[in-house]
Amino acid sequence: MKATRWKCVCAYDGTSFAGWQSQSGGSAVQDVIEARLTEILKTPVRIHGSGRTDAGVHARGQVFHFDAIWPHGSDAILAALRGGLPITIQVKSAKKVSDDFHSRFQAKGKRYAYFIHLGDTDPFTRPYRWCLFRPLDVKAMEQAAKVLCGRHDFRAFTALNGPAKENTVRNLRVLEVLKRGNEVRITAEGEGFLYKMVRSLVGVLVAVGEGRLEVAKVSEILDSRRRTAVVPTAPPQGLCLMKVFY
Amino acid sequence: MKATRWKCVCAYDGTSFAGWQSQSGGSAVQDVIEARLTEILKTPVRIHGSGRTDAGVHARGQVFHFDAIWPHGSDAILAALRGGLPITIQVKSAKKVSDDFHSRFQAKGKRYAYFIHLGDTDPFTRPYRWCLFRPLDVKAMEQAAKVLCGRHDFRAFTALNGPAKENTVRNLRVLEVLKRGNEVRITAEGEGFLYKMVRSLVGVLVAVGEGRLEVAKVSEILDSRRRTAVVPTAPPQGLCLMKVFY
Repeated sequence: MKATRWKCVCAYDGTSFAGWQSQSGGSAVQDVIEARLTEILKTPVRIHGSGRTDAGVHARGQVFHFDAIWPHGSDAILAALRGGLPITIQVKSAKKVSDDFHSRFQAKGKRYAYFIHLGDTDPFTRPYRWCLFRPLDVKAMEQAAKVLCGRHDFRAFTALNGPAKENTVRNLRVLEVLKRGNEVRITAEGEGFLYKMVRSLVGVLVAVGEGRLEVAKVSEILDSRRRTAVVPTAPPQGLCLMKVFY
Repeated sequence: MKATRWKCVCAYDGTSFAGWQSQSGGSAVQDVIEARLTEILKTPVRIHGSGRTDAGVHARGQVFHFDAIWPHGSDAILAALRGGLPITIQVKSAKKVSDDFHSRFQAKGKRYAYFIHLGDTDPFTRPYRWCLFRPLDVKAMEQAAKVLCGRHDFRAFTALNGPAKENTVRNLRVLEVLKRGNEVRITAEGEGFLYKMVRSLVGVLVAVGEGRLEVAKVSEILDSRRRTAVVPTAPPQGLCLMKVFY
């Protein structure tokens, strides 16, 4: 029997994981899913994610693919996966795709959401929020978001220490700030993101919102193409990978 | 300086605790709060909760009191408590009360909510739901709830193995089943509850909802005044102590 390619969408609470990408200690989301698939399929399985998420970052729509010889249907593989994964990981769907599908190379874009709570919140939402204790000027944040939106060289917004010639131009299609009561949600959507880019964008937007950084400085930072301490990195627990577009 | 009595309301995610009540291992919610207060007040502090919650049960409105010599205001003690507790425990309020206030003896009633999800749910809500994979007949559950509501001897609905002469009559003021989409919430309110009573009530309501138990059997169980295997205990993670009335 021939192996077929499977595409899965999954959600995870990143609190207790060392991120998405496989770690030697086996404490990454990828490790746990691979171990379960290896159990089900009785042969070592390697899965390929649409991209990494950092330690502590959550996902509601991470996508991965793998190849497997599986004589049963997609409901059966989904049930088997769901049955054996910890409560912190949920495989939401599993479907057969053509052999040339690739979760990373064919991703056309991603949507992230970053969740902020103004003031303290309860133990049930804290692991998924950045709690801030100063008022936010949302209008100023929206102005800064407008400056950042679009196609730019985002070198100043990545923690990447790669070679200067690496292409750091990205098209940030959406950068939206939405406030409802004490909840502020920042949505970022684009074809691709640099390492820690969303958390750096959020860090700058919050600095503007708290009045620690002027809106006028934001385009200066962008133009500098240099990562400095002026760009803070927002903490991981507020971030969630919402959707991967194909 | 004279000690004053403090009343606090707190919320906790019970997932990783051995319940409310102090344990030798120090892994109860009470232990963690006492340890923090002992740090703040630099003298051993004992707190008194409105009642226990079992391992894995959550709270949004647990109440406790303690006595302390504290020369500063209530904002300061609240800030100190909030600063040093784990993310899973939140003290929501702290206020001075008269010396004869007692969180347990003066409680006039309690409200619990039990959260059920129909089908699988995501890693972000799973620790706070009982996920059920069979449809529920909510009308039948409402009929059963009507039978159970009111003043009854609830001996058949407690895991208590105490002496037969112990008073097991309780006034269940509210037992309500509310379904919205895939979420079912069962609210129980009364002057007091027996050990594992809410989870036993939920266990019976779900047995009725899933068609494993006839509504007519419910009053028979109540009248039997005997706990048997016919009354299942719903798992702890769906239960939340919402409010204590004074």
